[in-house]
Amino acid sequence: MLSLIPVLTIMNQRQGHEAKCDTVIVRFGGEIGIKSEWTRRAYERLVLRNIYRALRHRGTVYDKLLRKRGRIYVKSDSASEVAEKLTRVFGISSVSPAANIASDMKEIARAAVAVASDMAESGSSFAVRCHRVGDHAYSSLDVCRQVGEQILEKLAERNLHVDLTNPQFTISVEVRESEAYVFANTLQSAGGFPVGSQAKVVGLLSGGIDSPVALWLAMKRGCTVTPVYLDNSPLTDEATTEKALETARKLFDWSIGYPRNVYVVPHGKNLQTIMENAPRKFTCLLCKRIMYRIAERIADAEKAEGIVTGEAIGEQASQTLVNLRVLDEAVSTYPVHRPLLGFDKTETEALARRIGTYETSIREAKGCSAAPSQPSTQARLEVVKEAEKQLDIPTMVEESIRAARIVTV
Amino acid sequence: MLSLIPVLTIMNQRQGHEAKCDTVIVRFGGEIGIKSEWTRRAYERLVLRNIYRALRHRGTVYDKLLRKRGRIYVKSDSASEVAEKLTRVFGISSVSPAANIASDMKEIARAAVAVASDMAESGSSFAVRCHRVGDHAYSSLDVCRQVGEQILEKLAERNLHVDLTNPQFTISVEVRESEAYVFANTLQSAGGFPVGSQAKVVGLLSGGIDSPVALWLAMKRGCTVTPVYLDNSPLTDEATTEKALETARKLFDWSIGYPRNVYVVPHGKNLQTIMENAPRKFTCLLCKRIMYRIAERIADAEKAEGIVTGEAIGEQASQTLVNLRVLDEAVSTYPVHRPLLGFDKTETEALARRIGTYETSIREAKGCSAAPSQPSTQARLEVVKEAEKQLDIPTMVEESIRAARIVTV
Repeated sequence: MLSLIPVLTIMNQRQGHEAKCDTVIVRFGGEIGIKSEWTRRAYERLVLRNIYRALRHRGTVYDKLLRKRGRIYVKSDSASEVAEKLTRVFGISSVSPAANIASDMKEIARAAVAVASDMAESGSSFAVRCHRVGDHAYSSLDVCRQVGEQILEKLAERNLHVDLTNPQFTISVEVRESEAYVFANTLQSAGGFPVGSQAKVVGLLSGGIDSPVALWLAMKRGCTVTPVYLDNSPLTDEATTEKALETARKLFDWSIGYPRNVYVVPHGKNLQTIMENAPRKFTCLLCKRIMYRIAERIADAEKAEGIVTGEAIGEQASQTLVNLRVLDEAVSTYPVHRPLLGFDKTETEALARRIGTYETSIREAKGCSAAPSQPSTQARLEVVKEAEKQLDIPTMVEESIRAARIVTV
Repeated sequence: MLSLIPVLTIMNQRQGHEAKCDTVIVRFGGEIGIKSEWTRRAYERLVLRNIYRALRHRGTVYDKLLRKRGRIYVKSDSASEVAEKLTRVFGISSVSPAANIASDMKEIARAAVAVASDMAESGSSFAVRCHRVGDHAYSSLDVCRQVGEQILEKLAERNLHVDLTNPQFTISVEVRESEAYVFANTLQSAGGFPVGSQAKVVGLLSGGIDSPVALWLAMKRGCTVTPVYLDNSPLTDEATTEKALETARKLFDWSIGYPRNVYVVPHGKNLQTIMENAPRKFTCLLCKRIMYRIAERIADAEKAEGIVTGEAIGEQASQTLVNLRVLDEAVSTYPVHRPLLGFDKTETEALARRIGTYETSIREAKGCSAAPSQPSTQARLEVVKEAEKQLDIPTMVEESIRAARIVTV
């Protein structure tokens, strides 16, 4: 009976992509490769740990996680599903669900035919590429030629033809010593550094389009993120809060296995006090300066190293270059990081779609009804500080912090 | 003789693209359109002024600049050349060199045939699209149909065919009241806000890949930019300085008509003092903290509203989240804006190529030889400040500022 096993395997492989691809090739982000030896190894270990967390937390079935020769290999019968999930783990540049076989020309050709049979529509053009490391009886060119011939012969009824310049699909063969990998699909991941490779940031999250994108960019560069949502009800409504929490959920899908906590801080009373006691044109600036101070207190509590906001130069009246300076002055012990400074709105929206927060961010909710019709765009710091003298800011911050709750989403 | 003029014009139009396209359609960046009426008008006027400057400073020939119906039209016999130049003016989303004719069906068809004749290779597929504003004897569909028929008929020898789904070229017809525009090419511009719509920033420029991109992003959002180059010679060489000045030149090609000044500040002696008098692992942090302070002094002198740097989280040892906090603390009166915080190196490089600074940035030069082999990645502020006590920082800053020169590039 034993002799039947290879035959059964081949039959099984021919039934569908899932059956053939038993491995996901995971390539590290290019920027990890140029780090010092010590840092590179630490980052690679962290990517491995984050992959483990991402798969385990989502109950994805896999057999083994291997790190070898500058890559990670995940063994799984659900290679496509695993690959899809790993596109949301930072520190990875791309992934390919692949068939892993011995570096034997016949086996390679058989696997290549099986993978091609899933890709090839009638009349398609294709190319074969090979990358080879180690000593073998054949050259890379031999692999391309023989695999190409086998595909043309075994799938003759599909009328395929070779086109090396602009093929409709490409069969890639990677030969590494005694093993080989055959694949046709490579999914791009988001690159960056593994979450946890940098310290923590606290980030202002509003429920709008920008702030989750700003936090995602900090996450992409390795930071763990604790969002802070300032609840302006009754000047906003419950739907606004729910939107913010939902965007946080989507955001945390990019840092599976790390805490999913959001600070929800009552701020509506503060905002009302500001509207009643300070020039209307400064409402947004004064509101934000208090938000910054609250974020600063939470950064202390969370042992964070910075505050992230979604501001882009000139996007709103409170975000002119002059007003950003006025805002910045409210925080002295942390840098305020604004990864979207140079983004156009359309660019931020495109990124939000890719991240998965866009649809939630544009959901109907009561926008903040405190915004004045003629906000100051060129506020003078002295005048804003003078206006703040009418407010008991330490008490406002203190009461908000005391009423804050941590929501795990 | 007068009756010959239209015939001559048509003959002339058939000779080449330049002869036909007498107008450049300029579309404002989308974000300008969602500003308040007052701001929108001010921004549109500024785009107009910047176009005027860009064309005049480059000696480009044009006849007229018109702002009407939410767009700008530049009349010029060198429409393609003008269009190319305007892709480097911020606040513009796209430009199209076009033939401007009366909204008469025959004229439209004639212009469309002439434009198509430049685009159509033998056997090409094409589509005609029409957008119409105003009352006309024909519908948009009529235009598409009749223009399409005329192209097929007049260019019959080219064997063209219509493909509305995936055409190889598209003839666009825009009918606006009594006028019409016909074009085949739309060039994407960089969007953003017009330079001068925001205040000034001072930016640290190193000659490397990142810093000019960071300054470009601030410029893109409307800021005027004054680069500050810290000259570390003899720890770097003359080629490093020349590289920095050359990237500044390329950068200023995006803000034609605005000052092209670069501060060149001697800093090598400071760096040597740091190397000799403070722990080596802090060299880069201490060097940068002094650079920040120098930038702060120049920001005062230039009446700037912020300092821009090219740092990205985790890109180098001095740019870990923890160390950015240590750097930030050196400046108290300006925000430090870091538009590249969330960028991967490959993303910054791609943008540098588009901007035109990449080739200069990678030119051979002596890298800074002061960088230690084991820099601190998690410096504690108190320890860094303790190390600074061994240095006479106010004097170092003062002497650098006094020896600074302004180079107009």
